[in-house]
Formats: sequence, structure tokens, C-alpha cells
Amino acid sequence: MSEIFKAHLKKFIELKEEDFPVILSFFEPVSVRKKENLLIEGQICKSHYFVLKGCLRKFFVNDKGVEQTTEFAIETWWITDNLAYEHQLPTEFYIQAVEHSEILVINAQAQEKLLEQFPVMERYFRFIYQRAYAASQMRIKYLYSFSKEAFYNQLEKRHPEFIQRIPQYLIASFLGFTPEYLSEIRAKRVS
Amino acid sequence: MSEIFKAHLKKFIELKEEDFPVILSFFEPVSVRKKENLLIEGQICKSHYFVLKGCLRKFFVNDKGVEQTTEFAIETWWITDNLAYEHQLPTEFYIQAVEHSEILVINAQAQEKLLEQFPVMERYFRFIYQRAYAASQMRIKYLYSFSKEAFYNQLEKRHPEFIQRIPQYLIASFLGFTPEYLSEIRAKRVS
Repeated sequence: MSEIFKAHLKKFIELKEEDFPVILSFFEPVSVRKKENLLIEGQICKSHYFVLKGCLRKFFVNDKGVEQTTEFAIETWWITDNLAYEHQLPTEFYIQAVEHSEILVINAQAQEKLLEQFPVMERYFRFIYQRAYAASQMRIKYLYSFSKEAFYNQLEKRHPEFIQRIPQYLIASFLGFTPEYLSEIRAKRVS
Repeated sequence: MSEIFKAHLKKFIELKEEDFPVILSFFEPVSVRKKENLLIEGQICKSHYFVLKGCLRKFFVNDKGVEQTTEFAIETWWITDNLAYEHQLPTEFYIQAVEHSEILVINAQAQEKLLEQFPVMERYFRFIYQRAYAASQMRIKYLYSFSKEAFYNQLEKRHPEFIQRIPQYLIASFLGFTPEYLSEIRAKRVS
């Protein structure tokens, strides 16, 4: 399973074969059951999660007590509450497994040591954060410019694998719909 | 003016005194007049902008022809369309000076060379992107969870310097208000 991580690293950096086991030793491999929480609102956000297999999501509970999903992470994606993680603060989010998942977990101190010992990992994480930031800038543009229905159409066009894979009520939670409204949109399309 | 950049770099990395002039040589210092555009929708996004003095903003023009501001950059902040910049694509955004500004400009090829020649700059940009990503994750949470009025209150509490400095019509554009609605909120507060 860790081969997935190795292949992923090699897309971004030149990795010496003998270094990989040492890099990997900074991480803990964890199996997560479907709907298991890795992080709960109010906890200090200690860890950064890399998905080898499966799917995680991040959400918060809004004033009305409704779960609002803000992010998904599938294979080879990272997920955490980055603000709380960097400053070791209590989080406003939950991170939960959407499916049974195999993940690698690193904590902030270990990540700092990893970067000290392998400066090439600075380059790797620079790429990861750069791309994540670019994606979230586009996300903000969509949140401003699209109606909810157009946002769904965009998601379906750009990420059909999400629509296939992720339960409808979570897609609705991500888009800020009720599940009923999502059913209506889909029904309208079919008719 | 470049001392501002040096002091900023030193917050993140150990910088050898003799390296700074070489690092600086990768950038072009540019003076931008108020309301001057640095980037226009449809152009290839070639550059990354660092603000030494002044203020830039990023916006797009929505379907109704209205400018929607998505980002500001004040002193020691970076700004670009990161997706278009990394992949050298045409942008969907404009970048414009809010005030007369002094900036440093680097293009994508020069940034790549800078990272090759000074690997310590990987660490610097890793921090920059990590923090920018964390801030935009929180921004997305606010976009989901706050009413427009609550979003304004939050901005006023966390970034009073913005409210002081940036023209009201641009604050309105950032929050997705009409300027009239913003005046109403402010009037309500005073009364």
C-alpha cells in the first residue's frame, strides 16, 4: 500500500530508493472504518492525513445543526484543518471517513522533523500546498459566481468520479443543498 | 524598498547576506499607478506579484457584468491567479492596483530557476502557500456559514486595517454586496 505514496512522491521530486523507508517511518499507517471520525470539533488538530485508498471528508456543523461538507480527499490527496494544524489550535471542523479507508498519518512535529532531515520534502510540500491553494482560489470563484445548480453541473463535468462515488446526501452537503433539492435537479435532467 | 522583502524572507528562512542581492535579481521592481491593471482576463498569467507598498486586488467580471473582488494583497502579501500561473494558462481574473503600489514581479520561469539555485526558497514558498491555503480554507467556511452581514462583521473584527484603508465600493465587491447595502449595514450600526 505504501507503494502508492512512493509513486506519488516520485511525480514531484527525485527520490533516492534508500530514502523512502526512512521517509515512510515518519508516518503511521491507519485503517479507518466508514463514518469513523479522525478529528472532532474542539480537538487540537495534531495530524495531517494522506489517503492511500478510500475517501475522507471535512465538514463543520452550522448554526442550524446541519453538517456542511467543505472538502473531500480521495486517493493521493492530503486533508487536514491547515490553520489549526500549523498552529496546533482547536479545530472548527470534523474529518470523517466516507468509505473504509487506508491512510498515512503524520503529526506536526514529525512533519517538521521530516522537512529538516529531507529538505527535498520542502519542494514536495511546496507543490502540494501550491496546488491546493490554486484549487481553493477557483473554488472561491465558483462560490461567488455560480448558482447552486450551476455549481452541481460544474462538479459533474469536472469530477464525474465524485458524483459516481460519493453518496448523494454528501454531495448535497458539499453543495449546500438539501438532499431533496439535489434529487429535484437530477430528476429535471432526466426528464 | 527591497529591504522590506529581505526582512520578510528572514521571518521564514535563514538567509545569507550575500545571497539576497542574487535572489532579488530574479525579480523586477515595478511601480503601479492606482487602478492600473497588471493582469487582464484572457491573458496568459505569466507573473507572481509581491507587494512592497500599497494594495492590489484580484477580481473577475460576473455574468451580469459586475466586478466581483475575490482577494486583496497588502504589504508583504503575494498575489496571482495561481492555477493559470503554474500552468501558464489564460486567466479568468483581473489584478489591479487599489492604491499606487510598489511591487516585485517574478515570472514563472524565473521562479523555477530561483528555486533550483536557492533550494531554501522551496521552504519559503512552502510556508507562503501553506498559509495562503489555510486562509482560503477558512474563507470557504465563512462563505458557507455566514450571512453577508456576519461576513462583514467578521472582516471588521479580524482585519480592521482593511475596512479603514480600502474604498467602500471595493469592500462591497469583496463581500458580494451592493455599495448601497453596505451603507445600510453601517448606518444601522451607528444608529
